[in-house]
Amino acid sequence: MTASTWLHENFDKAGSSIGFRVTRKLDEVQSPFQKIEIFESTDWGNVMLIDGAMMLTTRDNFLYHEMMSHPALFTHANPKRVVIIGGGDCGTLREVLRHPGVEKAVQCDIDEQVTRMAEKYFPELCESNNDPRAELLFDDGIAYMANCEPGSVDIVIVDSTDPVGPAEGLFNKAFFESCHRALKDDGILVQQSESPLVLLDLIKAMRAEMGKAGFASFQTLPFPQPCYPTGWWSCTMAKKAAGADFGFREADARAKSFDTLYYTADLHKGAQALPPFVAQALALAQP
Amino acid sequence: MTASTWLHENFDKAGSSIGFRVTRKLDEVQSPFQKIEIFESTDWGNVMLIDGAMMLTTRDNFLYHEMMSHPALFTHANPKRVVIIGGGDCGTLREVLRHPGVEKAVQCDIDEQVTRMAEKYFPELCESNNDPRAELLFDDGIAYMANCEPGSVDIVIVDSTDPVGPAEGLFNKAFFESCHRALKDDGILVQQSESPLVLLDLIKAMRAEMGKAGFASFQTLPFPQPCYPTGWWSCTMAKKAAGADFGFREADARAKSFDTLYYTADLHKGAQALPPFVAQALALAQP
Repeated sequence: MTASTWLHENFDKAGSSIGFRVTRKLDEVQSPFQKIEIFESTDWGNVMLIDGAMMLTTRDNFLYHEMMSHPALFTHANPKRVVIIGGGDCGTLREVLRHPGVEKAVQCDIDEQVTRMAEKYFPELCESNNDPRAELLFDDGIAYMANCEPGSVDIVIVDSTDPVGPAEGLFNKAFFESCHRALKDDGILVQQSESPLVLLDLIKAMRAEMGKAGFASFQTLPFPQPCYPTGWWSCTMAKKAAGADFGFREADARAKSFDTLYYTADLHKGAQALPPFVAQALALAQP
Repeated sequence: MTASTWLHENFDKAGSSIGFRVTRKLDEVQSPFQKIEIFESTDWGNVMLIDGAMMLTTRDNFLYHEMMSHPALFTHANPKRVVIIGGGDCGTLREVLRHPGVEKAVQCDIDEQVTRMAEKYFPELCESNNDPRAELLFDDGIAYMANCEPGSVDIVIVDSTDPVGPAEGLFNKAFFESCHRALKDDGILVQQSESPLVLLDLIKAMRAEMGKAGFASFQTLPFPQPCYPTGWWSCTMAKKAAGADFGFREADARAKSFDTLYYTADLHKGAQALPPFVAQALALAQP
């Protein structure tokens, strides 16, 4: 038996910690942007850390990737052009491309090394990288969105690390203005929005910045995610129109042509029911 | 500023770990049954550990206590007599007694020291202990259920530690037979059933033991719980009748006379939608 040890991420902001039992470090690279490490674990497959923060494990990444993609894609009436900012592990791209109506999905991650590591240690997440509808760019997502043709995109998915370091610029008004301009009128912006239990202030601040950029309607969907702080995470969708409906194509979601491990139409509806303490903090009407 | 340190629970069975940043140990007692420790944390209020396992924090216990009580109490048509086995921190008892129709709630925990510690460090959980409908016993829950008058109880809530040590006997056929006998025909047994992600085998084994004891219908409801392994937990309800319906008194849940932080009728419905990988593992029809 291989010796094992415990690898902890102590998350200062929440005063909580998540860890996995690992057997060895498989790889490590210092890219121009960040330090990427891969560990082999006893129970969770491979684990990727960026600058010491848990990014994904083989075992539980399906929760995040399914919830970052399918709710938005089934909420939009007919999504054809999708842009993913970040998402270098390619797991969100794979889920997006499961939708047969998608004609083009651009993934723009600043750090090519994340994708190179994913290809090697999470190959299942990269299985759609050669789909003719996929375009992988390794470039600055802020510049990419700023230069996007206005009104050309149906969905922007911001699949970023936490709002510190390279991803800091993905949580402010200037970036959201670029997203707003690039999106069609009925477009949807979706962003990972951290823990609904301990990081509600961040969700509120993010919604406020989106609001300043012109987005007027929001929906936050919580979901479980063991490898992130508190094990409970969320994504937030934004639309341009005030009072926009976040009803989704439920019949299509029920009849979807692909399998999922977590997402279903019923799960989607369930996630729309915010717990009262979250709803109150976000100043929504109580469910 | 007080010095702080990180307190981790490394959970061998799942190869995962949960931790909190703590400032000091407030108390410790070795009871005849187990070691109980209380820590003060920087962000989660007080934290109780039993034999090194995180039991509850001030900040996140509402998730567990609300989900161990309200779904079962709103699923039963008219619950009057409730028995809680374990539950020494009194948080489940408090939630049960919020239901005005409950006439009697017996809490039977083998370890009086858990309640003494809760009174001191989680006084808000004990605020209903002097309710005239409450009876607190410090006795063997297995013997209590075995001696219960047959057909006298509407709901049995097994609010226990993990199935090792003092709680081991609360997860087998003999104990479930006692619960079955004590419950009325339309009675409900509800038990905490661990993580739906990594402990599915335990949920299956528990359902199998309940089945051998005569229970014929089951429903498992997942919910977030940051202080337990993987941050994702569940409770499982069992009924005697085959093909029993787990529809609940939705109108009553919407019109409930008390506030909750997590539970709502919509959350309850949402939790009924099991993710496909859980549903498949439990051999239920896909949602």
